[in-house]
Amino acid sequence: MTDPFVIVGGDAAGMSAASKAKREDPDREVVVFEKGDWVSYAACGMPYYVKGEVDDLEDLVAVTPEEFREERDVDLRTGHEVVAIDPEAKTVTVDADGERFDQPYGDLLIATGARAVEPPFEGFDLEGVFTLRSMDEADAIEDFVDEQEPRTAAIVGGGYVGVEMAEALVERGIDVSVFEMLPRILQPFGEATASTVADHLREQGVDLHLETAVEGFGGVDRVETVQLEDDAVSADLVVVGVGVAPNVELAEEAGIDLGPTGAIATDEYGRTNYEDVFAAGDCAEEDHVVTGEPDHVPLALTANRAGRAIGTTVAGDPTPTGGTAGTAIVKAFDLGAARTGILEDDRAREAGFDPVSVTIDAATRPHYYPGATELTVTLVADGESGRVLGASVVGEEGVKRIDTVATAVHAELTVAELRNLDLAYAPPFSPVWDPILTAAKVLEGNVDG
Amino acid sequence: MTDPFVIVGGDAAGMSAASKAKREDPDREVVVFEKGDWVSYAACGMPYYVKGEVDDLEDLVAVTPEEFREERDVDLRTGHEVVAIDPEAKTVTVDADGERFDQPYGDLLIATGARAVEPPFEGFDLEGVFTLRSMDEADAIEDFVDEQEPRTAAIVGGGYVGVEMAEALVERGIDVSVFEMLPRILQPFGEATASTVADHLREQGVDLHLETAVEGFGGVDRVETVQLEDDAVSADLVVVGVGVAPNVELAEEAGIDLGPTGAIATDEYGRTNYEDVFAAGDCAEEDHVVTGEPDHVPLALTANRAGRAIGTTVAGDPTPTGGTAGTAIVKAFDLGAARTGILEDDRAREAGFDPVSVTIDAATRPHYYPGATELTVTLVADGESGRVLGASVVGEEGVKRIDTVATAVHAELTVAELRNLDLAYAPPFSPVWDPILTAAKVLEGNVDG
Repeated sequence: MTDPFVIVGGDAAGMSAASKAKREDPDREVVVFEKGDWVSYAACGMPYYVKGEVDDLEDLVAVTPEEFREERDVDLRTGHEVVAIDPEAKTVTVDADGERFDQPYGDLLIATGARAVEPPFEGFDLEGVFTLRSMDEADAIEDFVDEQEPRTAAIVGGGYVGVEMAEALVERGIDVSVFEMLPRILQPFGEATASTVADHLREQGVDLHLETAVEGFGGVDRVETVQLEDDAVSADLVVVGVGVAPNVELAEEAGIDLGPTGAIATDEYGRTNYEDVFAAGDCAEEDHVVTGEPDHVPLALTANRAGRAIGTTVAGDPTPTGGTAGTAIVKAFDLGAARTGILEDDRAREAGFDPVSVTIDAATRPHYYPGATELTVTLVADGESGRVLGASVVGEEGVKRIDTVATAVHAELTVAELRNLDLAYAPPFSPVWDPILTAAKVLEGNVDG
Repeated sequence: MTDPFVIVGGDAAGMSAASKAKREDPDREVVVFEKGDWVSYAACGMPYYVKGEVDDLEDLVAVTPEEFREERDVDLRTGHEVVAIDPEAKTVTVDADGERFDQPYGDLLIATGARAVEPPFEGFDLEGVFTLRSMDEADAIEDFVDEQEPRTAAIVGGGYVGVEMAEALVERGIDVSVFEMLPRILQPFGEATASTVADHLREQGVDLHLETAVEGFGGVDRVETVQLEDDAVSADLVVVGVGVAPNVELAEEAGIDLGPTGAIATDEYGRTNYEDVFAAGDCAEEDHVVTGEPDHVPLALTANRAGRAIGTTVAGDPTPTGGTAGTAIVKAFDLGAARTGILEDDRAREAGFDPVSVTIDAATRPHYYPGATELTVTLVADGESGRVLGASVVGEEGVKRIDTVATAVHAELTVAELRNLDLAYAPPFSPVWDPILTAAKVLEGNVDG
């Protein structure tokens, strides 16, 4: 009998792999070690729990531990921490309930996720200072807002978490300040989208501080202020969201290679440098579909997709994990913002492209049809070949149109091919030329040949 | 000096070509002959004028005749009917104001559009019986509803026009019956979408008669009844929308070849069998991007795109018209329905494919996020190669997702490639696996290899 398929970490990548492996090969034993209690939860839903739109934290759990155990026949062991991997002996060492034991594996998936980056801010341990990465942290923030009724909140970092938490906390009646070190928020979304969202945050009453470094937090026991270089701002609650770092220590100590991004290096099947050791999700790299280079995009779909592919591969049907286009979407009050592919000139040049781009404003419906709003589309292509490299869109509705460009990016379409796509038109849904097509029409003039 | 670029017909294809040719080659004379008064109008918006959502019929005009003449320097002549083409002499014969003259051309675009099919129904000439193809007809229906206050309306044909007019007339407080000869409405949208829309029409109070042939209309001067085989139904107003026929007589008489669909045959640049005679829009064929065979899809984007490409070609930069994927979208009260590519088994088989398909229901957002609705997705692929052939979606929101599949169809992606697309996810916009990806995951199991 083959040794079991062992999975370290019970969130999106791990549980997708477990479920898929069991479905494809029901006789294979699948063991998942999760050091915490929560499995298969939607971390992306946590801001909406704090906001009050999701009633119960348990609602964010897609599949419960009982369902995994009883319906999917997965040997899921919560409260079990893997403390070492021996890829030569093909065992993992597990701590649980004060005991330690070795578990042999036939195939291993490392799905240890990522953790919130915690810069060395003074006062990080004060009460009222949080990061938002785990379900327990979401619970703690929600409890704090309920019980302490903070009047002011500071959010450090203007990425997804920062923007979503600004909306959530304003909705809870709190005065919110956001501090971002860089000249713009939502860095990966490009200048046009970032500045549109920034203006909108300010319209919603968010006090947005760009190019502003936070030095630490002040207060006695409980946080009272955010310390800037030459100023201090009042804050009864602080959420630090300055990015995530992959949990790679376990892999690194086992001699598993990390890649250039610092996450675990994998091939197109999610394999590490050991044939029977896979890595997926927020701890692992994926090849970028535009550059072909390893990238680290710790997002939910990437994790689910890679986990599912690895489950299929382990069950005997080798399946590529699919790579990443870096597609992302975020809600900021009444706006949606989305991006895909390569938007940054320097990244495009590094990958050997000669980027050209346009930013256009277009209505989401014909002028005569009620309710049209404006969509701003930035489209980037290689000036020589015309290949579509990426896009960003922002507006009150219709930002899922980014999927059209994501598909074009995957398929390596040119701007001329994108412009000629037969997309859906009727007045309640779109102008004749969809805003994506309009952007392609304009950009085409900047492409050679 | 080159003879002018002459265009027959002043709607989407014709005016797109005129504008683009002038922009690319401002010195070239561009003459448009339009036999009516309306140019460059959004026929797709007419049902919403009748519904009362568009205040003024003029609102449907994208660019006015004055703007074409004064700002775009197009020699636009309304009230001018082209009655003959001589492709050897390179002239067209024009009737205007009781005079007849010959106009030489360097390049010619035939953009004569299509007309409503009028079956030989008895009583078609009764007052209160309409088709809906021209702006004047939209005006006449709106006037009739305003002035005659019909209490009952019959719509003959369950295609786009039928469905959109059902919504418009119900909104006007009229009891609406729809008669469709075939076993389902929205024939090109496939069974799952058609039956969902049919149920919804009935919920909205529309009296839907499937597999019901209309034999004629009864009444004295004004329509009073719709005659069925063995029944008569009361109707104060009738709208016949049983399809359109391309206006090809002018071309045919000039020796210009028609294609297998009965519309004007064209090559990938929109050229007819005469080097300097082009055809575009509702009177012309386009190659289907899946089958590679000529098709006749009289829709607005196809016309605009082909017109624009031909304008570019005539100005000296040969540009393919792009073909059609048959993408379409329609609103039916609270539902949207959309389709792309090849959905019909027999069409797929004729084109050499071995079609497999699935229909799935998926939520538009995660279960925990407020406002999720159900989307039904039908996805069709070639069972051997896995190539994506087409899709249909129906639901209360998010049906523009059809564009993802339209893009995949154009790019000749396989189901496995579609499943691996990095589409945008965040709880306010989508579940982790977008409904399109879920359909691809399920369909993948039915594909060989």
